[in-house]
This record gives sequence, structure tokens and C-alpha cells, in this order.
Amino acid sequence: MLDQKSATTRKLLLACRPQGEVKDSDFKLISAALKEPAAGEILVQTLYLSIDPTNRIWMTDAPQYMPPVAIGEVMRALGVGIVLASKCKGFAVGDHVTGTVGWQEHACGRPEQLGLQRVEPVPGLPLTAYLGLLGATGGFTAYFGLLDIGRPQAGETVVVSAAAGSVGSMVGQIAKIHGCRVIGLAGGPEKCAYVTDELGFDACIDYKLGDLENAIATACPEGIDVYFDNVGGAVLDAVLCNLQLKARIVLCGLISTYNSEVIVGPKHFEQVLMRRARIEGFIVLDYAERFPEAAPKLIEWSKAGKLRYRETVLQGPLEMAPEALRRLLRGEKKGKLSLQLKALA
Amino acid sequence: MLDQKSATTRKLLLACRPQGEVKDSDFKLISAALKEPAAGEILVQTLYLSIDPTNRIWMTDAPQYMPPVAIGEVMRALGVGIVLASKCKGFAVGDHVTGTVGWQEHACGRPEQLGLQRVEPVPGLPLTAYLGLLGATGGFTAYFGLLDIGRPQAGETVVVSAAAGSVGSMVGQIAKIHGCRVIGLAGGPEKCAYVTDELGFDACIDYKLGDLENAIATACPEGIDVYFDNVGGAVLDAVLCNLQLKARIVLCGLISTYNSEVIVGPKHFEQVLMRRARIEGFIVLDYAERFPEAAPKLIEWSKAGKLRYRETVLQGPLEMAPEALRRLLRGEKKGKLSLQLKALA
Repeated sequence: MLDQKSATTRKLLLACRPQGEVKDSDFKLISAALKEPAAGEILVQTLYLSIDPTNRIWMTDAPQYMPPVAIGEVMRALGVGIVLASKCKGFAVGDHVTGTVGWQEHACGRPEQLGLQRVEPVPGLPLTAYLGLLGATGGFTAYFGLLDIGRPQAGETVVVSAAAGSVGSMVGQIAKIHGCRVIGLAGGPEKCAYVTDELGFDACIDYKLGDLENAIATACPEGIDVYFDNVGGAVLDAVLCNLQLKARIVLCGLISTYNSEVIVGPKHFEQVLMRRARIEGFIVLDYAERFPEAAPKLIEWSKAGKLRYRETVLQGPLEMAPEALRRLLRGEKKGKLSLQLKALA
Repeated sequence: MLDQKSATTRKLLLACRPQGEVKDSDFKLISAALKEPAAGEILVQTLYLSIDPTNRIWMTDAPQYMPPVAIGEVMRALGVGIVLASKCKGFAVGDHVTGTVGWQEHACGRPEQLGLQRVEPVPGLPLTAYLGLLGATGGFTAYFGLLDIGRPQAGETVVVSAAAGSVGSMVGQIAKIHGCRVIGLAGGPEKCAYVTDELGFDACIDYKLGDLENAIATACPEGIDVYFDNVGGAVLDAVLCNLQLKARIVLCGLISTYNSEVIVGPKHFEQVLMRRARIEGFIVLDYAERFPEAAPKLIEWSKAGKLRYRETVLQGPLEMAPEALRRLLRGEKKGKLSLQLKALA
């Protein structure tokens, strides 16, 4: 199955800083000789690329939570790979690894330099679970962001944006598990139906219908106690007008702004003062050491049917990655989006 | 000294919602008969009006932390008064009271309805100390906002806006008492000199000189750990570009926006996410029960010379209150601003 004999491998380098929506021409496809691992190194074949909003952040050179990807570097991305060759203790051929595989067909180097960790297999879970249910940009983000930053109490009202997405869908379900009333925000009737009918949220508001401020007020008559924000922008504005006293806002993502050159701050920012609210930025990497604490609970909830998730797995060659990211940022997918790398025909 | 025999008293009612800077014509001066207190009531003469940024908030009907002042109501304001007559246990003629005296020469009613409390005299402190050092919009705001919300640690960098003002001046000094490096932001060389030379801040940046973002970067090479914000607007924008990881922003006031009809949100809001910062709204009234915990410390620090404050006491008749508020919002005062009511000549 794995083409270990390839003499060459291909990589997508960041060619320039994208303006607005990413274009294929923002990246440069190169071929390079496939290296043999030296002592302490592993050779990994990329199986799945995790397509994440944060990819778009990494392409900019705006101040951010990690160094931007430099022009000419392999585009940074999370994913799942398989070890093709190993001269590193603890990694055997056929092991699966997860981490920052990058937009490349193969990676070769020391695991810690590559940002790769061996995956402990969990019976019954597909490999893509390491991007979704047990992914840094999936279940772990939902778990720590909601519980550590949002700190919902039973009976409180929790609102989640991008509720049909990888993180949002799990945030809402974890809030339900903790006894909260949960309102989702999603784009379009199909996503909203999924959020209420399959994920069990108490309600879901289609933000594309407009007048979101009043729709939220109707759905949350006592105001919002916890808002888990993946999107920022106009949705955040509408939420700020509907805060309960001492509300907590988990600022996890601002996806609505990632393609924008000029960012407009939250219009009703003064409500943070008036409602004595707390807005806290959250980056899941800060919690990496605590992932083992969350994993058993996520697996347990999943097996009990309390934590459902959907995924969209695109299949294609490496050069499909920019298109996959465009679809993500347009909202054209369900649940966790990944790209399964298929060799060129 | 006190004119107990007046048959009438005067009140300033809110006549309309001010647009932009307040005008005298936004208020209506009326005369009313001076009531005798009934059982359980006190009659209080207003001695000092506390001139506070929050007065401007209360005049609007935008969603806020207390009900807006209704059109035709006496304008709400804190202040200090003296009891002229009492039919209420615990209040004697000549006692001083503090609380929401309002823009009126006299108030008559039950103390709890009037929002008035008897002041425990502190030897050596002037009456206006109950508006400044021991004022809700003075020392108590600085104390609880900084220590409870900002939670500075010794060695951290604390930045304070409106550093020469009533709250800001005390925030910075309390941060110094707790071992922090403190940078003030103030308007003009005179205020900046006061902040460093008299209050002992490590530095003070004149925000009117422009390029505040770089000035802060130079003054805070390791970034800002705690920002105590009294002003919002462009100053907050510049701060957001200079946050240390896990920075805390005490959102105490947004004075730069109070005269604005259209509020522009913080431009660099995304930095809250990138730096995993916490922004928390703070209203001192939530801490009223804990004022007795702070008062002895504020007095002790003041007597030890560690907590200096300045005040500007205007003197004039009641109808000078709008002008006093205009001066406050223009920054034309030093330290705590109050209006000592003087009878018409």
C-alpha cells in the first residue's frame, strides 16, 4: 500500500502571503529526493492532513501565537502519518504518528523536531479520530476551552458558534453532558437541523437569516452565561448584546475574519464592561500536557453515544490542500475536515 | 453655615439624552419645596458632588450596568452630604453621609432608598476623601479592580491609562506597593511629570504624542502583564499590540468613547486570542460588601505616604455640574474631581 520506494516526495511551500481567500498560486509545489532517516530520525508518510482555520493564520505574518510560516517553507499543518522507516527508539515501521506533518507527502527527521508523536491505537476508532475526537483542533480544544475557560455550571445557557463544525459540535455536546442549556449558531437549515436533531442541542440559530441579535435574545431569554466563539465578527457583536451578568466568552477562533485584511473590532465591546463579562483567549497548545487527562473522557462519551461527530474526508493529491482550506473557510463541509492524500494517478 | 430654613431646594433633572458632549440644556433646573423628613427619613444637604465618567453613561439609554436615569428624573451622582434633620435611627443632625446624593441641593427620604450611608469619620482625612481615597469611584475601584481582576504578581509589568486620574493614580501606586513595574499613560507633559515624579510610577507615556504602540513597546520590552483600562479606544488598541502571554486587562472604563454615538471596537482584538489574554469587565458596585476590607489598607498606605492622591475641587452652584462633567471628559482636571456646592450669591 505504501510506496516506500519512491525516489522523490512532493511538498507545498508557502510562496507568498495570501490576500483574502487563499489561491493555489500562493503555494509552490516542489519535488525533492526522499531521504533515508539518519540515526535518531524517522521517515513518515503523510496519510491525512487536518484542514484547520489556524492554517490561514499561520500563512500571515501578523503577530500570532506561533511563528508565521516563512516564505519558502513547507506549509505547516497537523495530520496523521505512518512510519515508513525508523532509526529512532520508540518508533517502529507501521506505527502511526500525529502532529505537524505539514503540507508534504513525507517528512524525515527527529520526531521531536518534526513535532510528531506516536499514536496509541484505540480500538474502534478510525485514524482520523486523532484529528477530530482526539485532535488538538477537535475534541481537546472543545474540552479544555469549554471546561477550563468557560467553566459552565449546570443549568446555565451556553452558546456556541460554528456549532456544526469539528470543535463547536463537541463543545455543545460536552456542555449538554454537564447539564447546560445549549444553543448553537450555524449557517443554513441543513447544519441547524444536524445540530439539533443529531447532536441534541436545545436549539440552533441560522445566522444567515439575519437579525441575529433578536434571534439570540429570543432563544436565550435570561442571557448567555458562556459563549464559545469560533468565528468573531458580526456573530460576536450579536452575542455581546445578550450577555448575562458575569458571562464568560471563550475566544477560540475568529474564522470570520481570517480572510480579511482589515479587522473590525467587536462593536458592542462596551457590554463586556456593563455585564462584567470575561473574554479569554484560548489556544489548545497550552494544554498539550493535559491531553491524556481529556482523552479517556472523550472516548468514554463517544462510546456512550453522548459525543457524536461527523467528518468530511476529502481525497486527493497534496495540491488539493489549498482548495480544502478554501472550502473550510467558506463553511462548505460537515464536522471535521481532512484531506486524505492519494498519490497522483 | 447650613441654611436649614430654606423653604425651597433646587434640582437638576435630565431633560434629554445628550448627544456628544453634554450641554447645559440637556438638564432642567427646578425649584421645589424643601420637605420635612417623615418617620424613618432623613433630610440631607449635598456638600460635594462626585464628578465621574459614569455620570455620562447613566445619561444614555444604551444597555448599561444600572437602569439609565429617566428623562425628568434628578440626575444620578455620587457625593457627600450632611444630615440637616433626621427621623431615622442611626442618623443624627450633623452626620455626614455618602452615596447617590444626585444633582440636587437636598435629598429627603429613607437612607436606603436614597442610597446613602453614614460616613465613619477618619481623623486627618477631608470629607472629599470619601469620594477619592475611600470613594467607590476612587480607591475602592483601584483596589478591587487591580487586585481582584488584574491579579498582578511582583515583578510583572502593569500599565494604567488615565494614570493621573482618580482611579489610575491609585492603581499604579497599589501596583508599586505590590512590587510591580508600573507604566502610566496620560495626556500631556504636566500630567506625565506628576505621575512619575509625585506618584512614583516607573514611567509615564504621553499618549498625545502619537505612535503609542511603539512607545509602549519601548517602555515594556517584555510586554504588558496587567493593563488597567479606564479609557478604551485607540489607547486600548495600542496596548493590545503589546501584551505578554496570559495578560490580564481590567476593563474598568471606556471614557474615550462616552461622548461617541458610534463605538468602534478594539482594532487588534485578535491579539486577545493570540496572547491568550483575559479581558474582564469590572464594576465596583459588585464589591460594595467588601469595601470595609479595603478601607483600612487604603488609609494605612495613605498615611505611610505610599498612596498619594490629588484632587480638584470646583466650587459653584448646582448648575455648574454639567460644566464640571465636560471638564472631566476633556481631561481638564487633576486627580479626583468634585464640585463643592455653594449657594447662589
